Amino acid sequence: MNRPFLVAALAAALSAGYAASAFSQVKPDQLVKQRQAKMTLQGKYFGPLALMAAGKIPYNAEVASRNAAFLEPLSKMAWDGFDPSTSGEKSNALPAVFQEQAKFKQAQERLEGDVTKLASAAKSGNEASVKAAAADVGKACGACHDNFRAKP
Amino acid sequence: MNRPFLVAALAAALSAGYAASAFSQVKPDQLVKQRQAKMTLQGKYFGPLALMAAGKIPYNAEVASRNAAFLEPLSKMAWDGFDPSTSGEKSNALPAVFQEQAKFKQAQERLEGDVTKLASAAKSGNEASVKAAAADVGKACGACHDNFRAKP
Repeated sequence: MNRPFLVAALAAALSAGYAASAFSQVKPDQLVKQRQAKMTLQGKYFGPLALMAAGKIPYNAEVASRNAAFLEPLSKMAWDGFDPSTSGEKSNALPAVFQEQAKFKQAQERLEGDVTKLASAAKSGNEASVKAAAADVGKACGACHDNFRAKP
Repeated sequence: MNRPFLVAALAAALSAGYAASAFSQVKPDQLVKQRQAKMTLQGKYFGPLALMAAGKIPYNAEVASRNAAFLEPLSKMAWDGFDPSTSGEKSNALPAVFQEQAKFKQAQERLEGDVTKLASAAKSGNEASVKAAAADVGKACGACHDNFRAKP
């Protein structure tokens, strides 16, 4: 293990919120930042698909396919950021996230399932299927936000 | 297209920075937020791999494999966030990002290549290979940060 790498690795780990005293624990504020980052990137890659599905921008098969492929892993990331340790942190997460964990987990799984279907549809390249699947993903986003996110 | 979905889709698109007047254009501050989100999630999923490679936490094949699989798509995301339109935004990106675009592109490709190798190594499950590949990823992170990111 050469020293420059060790320094870089530790810097990366520290910047990712691993406290020097307990590398397996991530601090609550960092967990919030990470789960918000997930939402930001989901927005980046779902936004154009939503607009295509809504007929607001022209359908672009290449963009649809790339974005859906990115959304599939993104949809699975950082749910662990909604850890009970974060319940006192400033964010738009409603108390229901921590009080109705089974229902919140269902909402996560609904999104993951609908995104998997979107990614499959995008691979097939059928425009109508992609748009229908994107609409379902949009509804999954909205349903979860309605129940678990403070209104903007 | 039902109305609840249309509303949700437009809300998602707007929150992702698509100006209502030009849905194909994302605002510079949003591009910065998106590329920072990418870095945050890369940190989340690379952090433990870096610590394993550095011998600071025990090797965990399951975590290594999941994190490497997440890093592969993440490494390809949001490079478009380093758009020239963002050169005036507050961030840690150095002017070199915009002045030395070919070199910056090379640094991106180095990371993507090294992360692909890490993901392959993680699939193989060989601890020494995973650690060596993680060390290379750490060096790719550090090299790019040295040249293109302001010192913290």
